[in-house]
This record gives sequence, structure tokens and C-alpha cells, in this order.
Amino acid sequence: MTTTPLSPSPRTRITRGRDRAVDDRSALHEFLDDALVAHIGVTVGEHPVVLPTAFAVDHDGPDRDGTLYVHGSVAAGWVRRSGGVTVCVTITELDGLVAGRSAFHHSMNYRSAVVIGEARLVTDPDERARALAMIVDHMIPGRSATLRPHTRKELAATAVLAVPLHDASMKVRAGDPVDEPEDVEAGIWGGYIPLRRVSSPAVTATESEGSPAPEHVVRRAQALM
Amino acid sequence: MTTTPLSPSPRTRITRGRDRAVDDRSALHEFLDDALVAHIGVTVGEHPVVLPTAFAVDHDGPDRDGTLYVHGSVAAGWVRRSGGVTVCVTITELDGLVAGRSAFHHSMNYRSAVVIGEARLVTDPDERARALAMIVDHMIPGRSATLRPHTRKELAATAVLAVPLHDASMKVRAGDPVDEPEDVEAGIWGGYIPLRRVSSPAVTATESEGSPAPEHVVRRAQALM
Repeated sequence: MTTTPLSPSPRTRITRGRDRAVDDRSALHEFLDDALVAHIGVTVGEHPVVLPTAFAVDHDGPDRDGTLYVHGSVAAGWVRRSGGVTVCVTITELDGLVAGRSAFHHSMNYRSAVVIGEARLVTDPDERARALAMIVDHMIPGRSATLRPHTRKELAATAVLAVPLHDASMKVRAGDPVDEPEDVEAGIWGGYIPLRRVSSPAVTATESEGSPAPEHVVRRAQALM
Repeated sequence: MTTTPLSPSPRTRITRGRDRAVDDRSALHEFLDDALVAHIGVTVGEHPVVLPTAFAVDHDGPDRDGTLYVHGSVAAGWVRRSGGVTVCVTITELDGLVAGRSAFHHSMNYRSAVVIGEARLVTDPDERARALAMIVDHMIPGRSATLRPHTRKELAATAVLAVPLHDASMKVRAGDPVDEPEDVEAGIWGGYIPLRRVSSPAVTATESEGSPAPEHVVRRAQALM
């Protein structure tokens, strides 16, 4: 695990709400281990395209300050356009709705990371296999070891992209609204509604009916409850 | 409410997982009413920047097929770069982790919309006021009517951007994994872990201690439980 602090470049530096910036790289890694969905932005012609995707982080990956991996179909336009170009990967978890005492001070509680870097198309078979296993295990820890290896056909259909974690920033907002003193004095109610992501018990697919969910799946569902 | 079906252009058309595409515009509007966070992608120099943001949708807004509004500080780089340029706004809600019977068929259950269009910097004072109220009420319905109007200074500090909902696509994945027949026959367990966003009761800010949360806040927290 790297321990250098976050030192965003001009492209990831937080210019608004600087008091919410986090410069502790271990906080970034902890957040990325908890979050489940990334939004990747890729320029397509003259405009950006933003798509949700699963991801995983190798804290000790081969790229500077660690590696963020995403995968996709080799036939997907955004995948074909990403190799060797600069992409932005943003990961956000919503933690609450902040009811300020004025419309202007309404906000959200959240944790969010922005990673900008050149996407590297992973070609080394060992790194590809490791990255694909990490993406499965990021969703359900321990699952990849219980599954058969990828077939040649599956591997040929899958692209793995690596983005260095070096140029990243993180922002966290938590707690009460920050209001104008006169709105507080006027006695207007302020506060927030906490939000969190929770699971229900695992659902067994129709064709597996009668089989109990394996231990690693039960454990994952419980950890998210 | 518009009732034309979704007819994505080549830039929003879904090319992968076409069976998950939704072409019912009312499903898009219903999803956008439920979702809370958007990720907006804006090209900055030679790369995209993707940032999380609150949003609201005016189904009968002035743009073709309705209007999606976001707001930001006039000092924010992404806001200054968005007016008159093509942006991508993507909204995703995660509904579950899909445990396929092979690594290749792991997936997520989700609802996701991609909107691509030219961002219009809203200058009309009535439209600006309406959009800002809608963004507050999208978080907590009924709240904006209980708050004082924006001050001139607050309005001067706030930019409102409108994106037409015309060029949009939506994708939904739900339910069981889709696996290879041989992996099903091998008796490997498949299924999914449902996920949802839930709230806890509203938390009163320190400076409002002793005041009960207003009815509209209590109602919103309950609706999200």
C-alpha cells in the first residue's frame, strides 16, 4: 500500500470547496475499496461520453501510486477509444441529503474521487487474469477462486484498461449544513437525511433453486446489510 | 409529460447489451425522478472531466423532450467550460451485484440513463429561479416553498445549466445472471445480492437542536426508508 499523500495536478486539483478536499492517500484507497460503481469519461469525437462500470483497485499495481482497473467488451466504442488516451474515472457514494436553511445552502453528503490518467490497454496475460479476478472479488470477495478460469473466447472478447492512481483527488462532505448566520438566527430548521446502501439476503437464480448460496456470497450480503 | 419514445442518436445509441435498452420515455422520466446524483462529463482541454452533481428534470421544460438542470458555482472550471458545448450527463442507480457462474458473466443490476446535448447557460431569471427550486425539491419535495428567496449575491454566484432530454438512452439490468449452459449444468451456484438506497430518520443540525424536523423532511426520510 502506497503512503504518499494525494497531490493532485492542476487537472484534478479541487478548486471549489477546498475545505472538503482529502489529501490522505489511504483514505482514497479505503473509499475505493468500499465503493462499487465508477463513471468513466472518454472523449468520443467532440464530446465526452460517461458510462457506469464496475472497477477494482490494485493498491500495489504496476502504475504510479497503484492501478485502477476497468473492463469492457472489446466491441464497445468507449473501450476501443480509451487505450492510450486520457480518461477520467469518478467514483461517488452518496451519504445524505443536506437540508440547508436556504436553497443556496442545500447540498449532499458524499465521498467522491476523481482519477485522471492515460488508460493503458492491459495485454500481459497474468496482469489481465489478476485484474479480472480483482473486479469479481471487489464485488464479492472470495468468489473468483471458486470459479473456472476464463475461456480463450471470453478472454478475446474482454478488454482490460488500467488507469494510474497517481493523479487523483478526493472530496468528502459530511454532517450539518453550513448556513448564513441570519438564517440560523431566524430559527429555520436545518439538518440532513442520512442515506446508505444496503443489501437484502442473496437471491438464488431460478436455475440454481434448491442450492444454498455459498459462504462467500452470504458473507458479502451480510457485510452490506 | 412528453410521450415520444426514446430514439437515441448514434452518440447515445446502445451498442452493447441492446436487450437491456429501454425505449419508453416515461420509464426514463420515472427513473430520473427517483435517482439523486448525476455525473456530468465536460471536455477540458484534451480530456474529459467527470463530476458528481445534484440535478432535476423538468418534464415539460423548454428544451426538446424536456430539460435536465444542473447548477454550480460560476467560479467552477467545469461550469465555465460547459455553456454552449456538448456535455454528457449520466445517471446510475445500482440495484444489485450479480454472481454469475463464471467470472465472465459477473455483472451488476442497475438502472442508467445517458443524456448528451448542448448545455445552455440559463439566463432568464424566472427559469433560473424555477430550476433552482426544482433542484432543492428533487432532493426534498416541498422544501423550496418553505425557504426565503435567493439573495442577489447568491444568484450572482450560481450558474444554472440546461441540457435537453431529447438525445437520451436508458439501460436496465435486473434479475438473475445469464450463464453458459455448461456452467449451469455443472451445478455452480448463481444468483444476485439485491442492493438499495435507504435513509435513516432526519438528523437535526446542532444549531437547530430542540426543533423538530418539518413535515416535508420527515416525509422525505420516510419515503426513502
